Amino acid sequence: MYQNRLNIPSTNQPRVVVIGGGFGGMQLIKSLYNSKVQLVLFDKHNYHTFQPLLYQVATAGLEPDAIAAPLRRILEECPDFYFRMAEVNHIHPEKNTISTTLGELDYDYLVIANGSKTNYFGNKSIQANSFPLKQIPQALDLRSHMLQNFEKAVLESDQEEQEALKNIVIVGGGPTGIEVAGALGELKKHVLPRDYPELDLKNMRIYLIEATSRLLGTMSEHASKKASQYLQHFEVQLILNKLVKHYDGKKVTLEDGTTLSSKVLIWAAGVKGNIIDGLRPEAIQNSRILVDAYNRVQGYEDIFAIGDVAAMVSEQHPKGHPMVAPVAIEQGKLLAKNLIRMVEEGKQLQPFKYIDKGSLATIGRNRAVVDFPGGIRFGGFFAWLIWMFVHLFSITGFRNKLVILANWIWNYFTYDRGTRLIIRPYIKFDHEEVERE
Amino acid sequence: MYQNRLNIPSTNQPRVVVIGGGFGGMQLIKSLYNSKVQLVLFDKHNYHTFQPLLYQVATAGLEPDAIAAPLRRILEECPDFYFRMAEVNHIHPEKNTISTTLGELDYDYLVIANGSKTNYFGNKSIQANSFPLKQIPQALDLRSHMLQNFEKAVLESDQEEQEALKNIVIVGGGPTGIEVAGALGELKKHVLPRDYPELDLKNMRIYLIEATSRLLGTMSEHASKKASQYLQHFEVQLILNKLVKHYDGKKVTLEDGTTLSSKVLIWAAGVKGNIIDGLRPEAIQNSRILVDAYNRVQGYEDIFAIGDVAAMVSEQHPKGHPMVAPVAIEQGKLLAKNLIRMVEEGKQLQPFKYIDKGSLATIGRNRAVVDFPGGIRFGGFFAWLIWMFVHLFSITGFRNKLVILANWIWNYFTYDRGTRLIIRPYIKFDHEEVERE
Repeated sequence: MYQNRLNIPSTNQPRVVVIGGGFGGMQLIKSLYNSKVQLVLFDKHNYHTFQPLLYQVATAGLEPDAIAAPLRRILEECPDFYFRMAEVNHIHPEKNTISTTLGELDYDYLVIANGSKTNYFGNKSIQANSFPLKQIPQALDLRSHMLQNFEKAVLESDQEEQEALKNIVIVGGGPTGIEVAGALGELKKHVLPRDYPELDLKNMRIYLIEATSRLLGTMSEHASKKASQYLQHFEVQLILNKLVKHYDGKKVTLEDGTTLSSKVLIWAAGVKGNIIDGLRPEAIQNSRILVDAYNRVQGYEDIFAIGDVAAMVSEQHPKGHPMVAPVAIEQGKLLAKNLIRMVEEGKQLQPFKYIDKGSLATIGRNRAVVDFPGGIRFGGFFAWLIWMFVHLFSITGFRNKLVILANWIWNYFTYDRGTRLIIRPYIKFDHEEVERE
Repeated sequence: MYQNRLNIPSTNQPRVVVIGGGFGGMQLIKSLYNSKVQLVLFDKHNYHTFQPLLYQVATAGLEPDAIAAPLRRILEECPDFYFRMAEVNHIHPEKNTISTTLGELDYDYLVIANGSKTNYFGNKSIQANSFPLKQIPQALDLRSHMLQNFEKAVLESDQEEQEALKNIVIVGGGPTGIEVAGALGELKKHVLPRDYPELDLKNMRIYLIEATSRLLGTMSEHASKKASQYLQHFEVQLILNKLVKHYDGKKVTLEDGTTLSSKVLIWAAGVKGNIIDGLRPEAIQNSRILVDAYNRVQGYEDIFAIGDVAAMVSEQHPKGHPMVAPVAIEQGKLLAKNLIRMVEEGKQLQPFKYIDKGSLATIGRNRAVVDFPGGIRFGGFFAWLIWMFVHLFSITGFRNKLVILANWIWNYFTYDRGTRLIIRPYIKFDHEEVERE
């Protein structure tokens, strides 16, 4: 029997509906693949995105396809598995259904794993004019926009206008912010001078603005200090303790009235959970969903949330766990086990315990910072090797590993970035829109 | 001294303006890199496209970035070289200038190397609803469209509608048509059944329609026969001696009234020269520019045309040379020599002589056909190895070679296609448009 447009058969196995094919959702489904449930996955993309390397796509170091893996392929081993490319708009806990862009579906268990989105903290001008960095189309947009600015800069004889086209402002001193700043510093140092001999790149500025007093706030003081040093090596100008108030597409205005001239603002200053309507308001706090130690959403028996969107508040983590991939993956694994316990065995559930394996961030070639548990902290070349190894090891799919390795070897030895392509469905010139062909 | 918005300095070296960074234009500039001329290149993309592998991008076998090379990077060794990303709209031979989307520029020598575009032979319904395959954005569009059709097919309970979503019609039995048909045959056989276990793929049809009585009309009878056999192995249905009359996006109508139901029509039935306004009408024939044995446009001393857009009519080639990459490359090389002779030495020019090194086409894994000069003709696995070697060897850039090799090895041993991603700037669902984030 098929239900409405979603066309998913009703069987006598309990149905687990998963919203989101990110780190958490994908891991959950993989871990459930041979259990006695029907799995239904919703995602608005047909691929999983390896977000930690998105910044390399935006800065022409990697092709988008290298950090994406088709969801159907990853999960094709699951026998009773259905993927639907759609967005989920509403949850109806009272009747155990969800509304999606393709119709309604009922669930026995619902797992919300749809991650986080860019947080503009209500600032409309920034939301309208800045570039976020959470999804592949955004990274491609940013790449094309920056390269087009340089194509425009060679045409510009007005000095001020030319500088605005060359300058880049990054807001947010977390891992994304510093990694993109480091990659842009490398571009400025090694690639742009060869591509644009016509331009004076000495007066190109890359600014990194952070609202607090240090970079990498979630890592050690040692890591913050090292990161600042490395960024200075790549001539990134750090602006600490400053908030951005306004951005009109050309001029960044800080809270203290200072202005910076730039036609690109990369917004990496914060994320918030992707909240879907329909849960009781008590279950939502600071745009995250409150869950218990079993990732069960507060007040429900059959709705779970994992990863960035879930806040498992405890004494040790008063604001919930950090919004990073390892938490999502571990929660996905454990929830799979717990679901099997519930469905197949009726056993006691296991509570989640997060073992922090450490944090890493890289800043340009040969440089990274590492915080390992037990106070092991270091930076430099060896940290960078670890960073590369961990990322290459973590990315889904052997093809992706091969392609990324090929690119990294190439980029390393040639100081080049092979993928600086302006690919847009319609090629936009300054003054007119030219159609394909 | 700078001229208008194009911002190109006037020097005392003669200025050679090249329109188009394809095989011909790129080769010309490379061959001129240390000569005493100023080089200005116009292209509407900032990258060179390796068109022979476009069909692999469209069929999820390769990432787009693997077959594109940034033009600034390829040509960065030329000291007096300017690239401008713009379209050229008009040539004014009477005043030695061109009009571009960025302004006017004068030239001492003009080289038209802007290739060919899809020829719809005036059929509006086909132009509006079919997918051409000449540029990277088109290949990405086609890839996304075909994958989205399959995502829709799993939702469809109406049998006829579902078949229209699964079926694919290719028009044109030249190299592009048969290569894309072979690649789609492979997808149908090896990839789609794993991705879409819900769908019955036995009643998915891939049609290849050719207006003449045989495939690969420019190659030997032997190659045509082999190609037909190979396509049948991949269950591609051949329709010969038939013209397509109409296509409304769902139903293909042939001249004899037959209809085929398909939501994808790939149009590879013909190309024509990209003609820019302004040349004397006598210089244009059948949408190509008539040139003499030195690639000089008929009736002009300082305007040249090379590659697909040029027709060098002779007894041996009454319609001009075939519109293929090797002709463009050889003409680019020779014209570079001749320009140096003109500018630097005032010597006699050398006429173009085309040495045909043979033709190749591949049809799915392990199968290709080869025509070598001297009547050496064969097909099969060895021909396929030659095809791969020639393409890998020809593609620009070592990074691209590495990435393509990695993909091919992966695709070969896993029967997989790693890049089946639906990446669009805006994700379109059937019934609504959802914005990014």
